Amino acid sequence: MSEYTLYCFAQSGNAYKAALMLNLCGADWQPRFVDFFKGETRTPAYRAINPMGEVPVLEHDGRRLAQSGAILDYLADRFGRFGWKDDDERREVLRWLLFDNHKLTSYIATLRFMLQFAKTGETPVTEWLRSRIKPALSVLETQLGSRPFAVGEAPTIADLSLCGYLFWPDEFGVEWADWPNISAWLDRIRALPGWVHPYELMPGHPLPAKR
Amino acid sequence: MSEYTLYCFAQSGNAYKAALMLNLCGADWQPRFVDFFKGETRTPAYRAINPMGEVPVLEHDGRRLAQSGAILDYLADRFGRFGWKDDDERREVLRWLLFDNHKLTSYIATLRFMLQFAKTGETPVTEWLRSRIKPALSVLETQLGSRPFAVGEAPTIADLSLCGYLFWPDEFGVEWADWPNISAWLDRIRALPGWVHPYELMPGHPLPAKR
Repeated sequence: MSEYTLYCFAQSGNAYKAALMLNLCGADWQPRFVDFFKGETRTPAYRAINPMGEVPVLEHDGRRLAQSGAILDYLADRFGRFGWKDDDERREVLRWLLFDNHKLTSYIATLRFMLQFAKTGETPVTEWLRSRIKPALSVLETQLGSRPFAVGEAPTIADLSLCGYLFWPDEFGVEWADWPNISAWLDRIRALPGWVHPYELMPGHPLPAKR
Repeated sequence: MSEYTLYCFAQSGNAYKAALMLNLCGADWQPRFVDFFKGETRTPAYRAINPMGEVPVLEHDGRRLAQSGAILDYLADRFGRFGWKDDDERREVLRWLLFDNHKLTSYIATLRFMLQFAKTGETPVTEWLRSRIKPALSVLETQLGSRPFAVGEAPTIADLSLCGYLFWPDEFGVEWADWPNISAWLDRIRALPGWVHPYELMPGHPLPAKR
């Protein structure tokens, strides 16, 4: 039995945020595969684990935590890594966690799901989602023009949140060559000891051909 | 000159989250009207104030803070109100702040903007947004079935975030009669000393007839 258990599946960038943090911290952790594509997160049994019906969920020391940002905050505290030096910096990290959840991951994860898994093709909704992603990426591109990581010189959980879906640019139709600061920042994250691509870090990839 | 200055406008539920907190805490604050509907948040001058191009922005004590959740966190610390008793409760508050930003405000604010201000009428995008709002409201309805406020017996900044757009149910087509726990919770928030409806708390309502 590992010390940490993470409810996750390979295609979830939100789960990846927590999985990557565990791996970068060298945590003793194991994945607990959630069969999202067979509807597990909609079952009463899963809703008893997380009433929000989402991954990731982290189990540790009798606690059960949901929401990737809250899990990252908990792990930063446990490991003393990727955190902040004072309350002002904690709020700066929080600002980027909120921006990620509200403006970046929110739209990218949904667009990718539609194109890659629901296979809706191009629709007015995918077109609208794209129109939201571009300004969000511009905000991040600008921020990374003046510092190597989201809040400063060192990587924090804000970076681990923001990058959650960004190692799949082909799956939501972006070329990092068009976003040089983001591209260089993703290279810096890839270079962190313990970095592993989401499809290799969590179970469930590739999906069975027949679903 | 007031102690706190809040960049806001009456139609922004995200700005309302911060304005309501300031008012409930009896802060010495003044609004700084942002002419969103004339494009102010897209100007270089405003981007210099907030590169994310959004309201609210709070100015206090030489600091400039953006993202409603980070502002609420700061004010809870300053006033010692609507906060948490320990790190576990802080993360529980954070969990609901993140849920609000990602799953509730995100979709409701956008649907309301399309219907009420952009006047798009019903489109595939508004239909899709409605399909996302219902499960998010269900999560909140369930949570409020077992406690008076989002994280427990007392109101916290999580409640002030979650309610940001919910005093305009007619503007995004929801009847609170269908959501009894949310309805009773909104009544509890309305009963807090210092509560004022967003259209009365912030400048810019009603909009000029000609835009």
